[in-house]
Amino acid sequence: MAKQIIGPEIERLVQLLAKLPGLGPRSARKAALALIKKREDLLLPLADAMTTAIERIVVCPECGNVDTMAPCAVCRDDSRDGAVLVVVEEVGDLWALERAGVLKARYHVLGGHISPLDGIGPEALNIAPLIERCGAGSIKEVILALNATVEGQSTAHYITELLGTRDVKVTRLAHGVPIGGELDYLDEGTLAAAIKSRKQI
Amino acid sequence: MAKQIIGPEIERLVQLLAKLPGLGPRSARKAALALIKKREDLLLPLADAMTTAIERIVVCPECGNVDTMAPCAVCRDDSRDGAVLVVVEEVGDLWALERAGVLKARYHVLGGHISPLDGIGPEALNIAPLIERCGAGSIKEVILALNATVEGQSTAHYITELLGTRDVKVTRLAHGVPIGGELDYLDEGTLAAAIKSRKQI
Repeated sequence: MAKQIIGPEIERLVQLLAKLPGLGPRSARKAALALIKKREDLLLPLADAMTTAIERIVVCPECGNVDTMAPCAVCRDDSRDGAVLVVVEEVGDLWALERAGVLKARYHVLGGHISPLDGIGPEALNIAPLIERCGAGSIKEVILALNATVEGQSTAHYITELLGTRDVKVTRLAHGVPIGGELDYLDEGTLAAAIKSRKQI
Repeated sequence: MAKQIIGPEIERLVQLLAKLPGLGPRSARKAALALIKKREDLLLPLADAMTTAIERIVVCPECGNVDTMAPCAVCRDDSRDGAVLVVVEEVGDLWALERAGVLKARYHVLGGHISPLDGIGPEALNIAPLIERCGAGSIKEVILALNATVEGQSTAHYITELLGTRDVKVTRLAHGVPIGGELDYLDEGTLAAAIKSRKQI
């Protein structure tokens, strides 16, 4: 019944918005109506921004980051330490590390993690170019900044094995209590890792 | 620092997505990256759906609903009872009532509620055309299906006063315990309303 009321054009807009992470069917309806209601302030600018994205945003052939130029702004930044390469799963992880602002290194975006259950093998990821990059001789350390999930860690393990023959140091992020975290809310795995890697003060 | 990494085109996409209801700054970043990553499956179709919306979706001059034709599908539907007019705040409320599917009436979308604090007076809403519509003689009952909020109820009060001189019955939605609701979680106002309007079984 509601289908008849909502025309196919609006219905399609709702269904596509519902595919965005963070929006369910209900919030997609609200978002579609907000777009239609705020035509000048939201719908037109967003459609324009998306057209610009379609036309101009490319994946960096060097590192897998997204930008409007290739190589991307990170790869072109000569002030960064070319000897350290930070491997991340997604571009969002690169952004997160940049927000933290602790290191001025270069990145390599895998585009996901190995997940046999989802049919994602190493060849589906940006791994072969990573190994090639590490063979060029300029990279001294590879920091595997992958998610602390089963998939992230097995991807890290796979890459570590491949890099075993290369003359590079392979490191991973530390595990432990998040800053501001309360012990009572942490899982046993995190607590065990935090105790195992305890530091003298 | 992060600003330098995220180019202005992507930054603009993120900021516009963050204006959608249901998306905060963090989920807008995730949504923007999902769009860029799923270019063929999501970015292109969504940009196309939004262009279609810009070109084709209009506000119905009769009732305030949105559709690709004017009058809208609801106003053109002759099987609906033209004697009953359901007044709602937003198009989303119209959709919600249609999903409930209890009445085949016509609608009138106000486009919001009276809110002096936000500078929204009656003249900013679709109220004058409502009064005019009710004067045409065909409408026998006006159901004020407005939100049970202070603003919704004062808007209902204002409309009721305006319709006082017209020969129409003005009704409002019942207040009470929502179906599936647990008394312990309901506020006192709802419980008081539910007791006051109790029904013999």
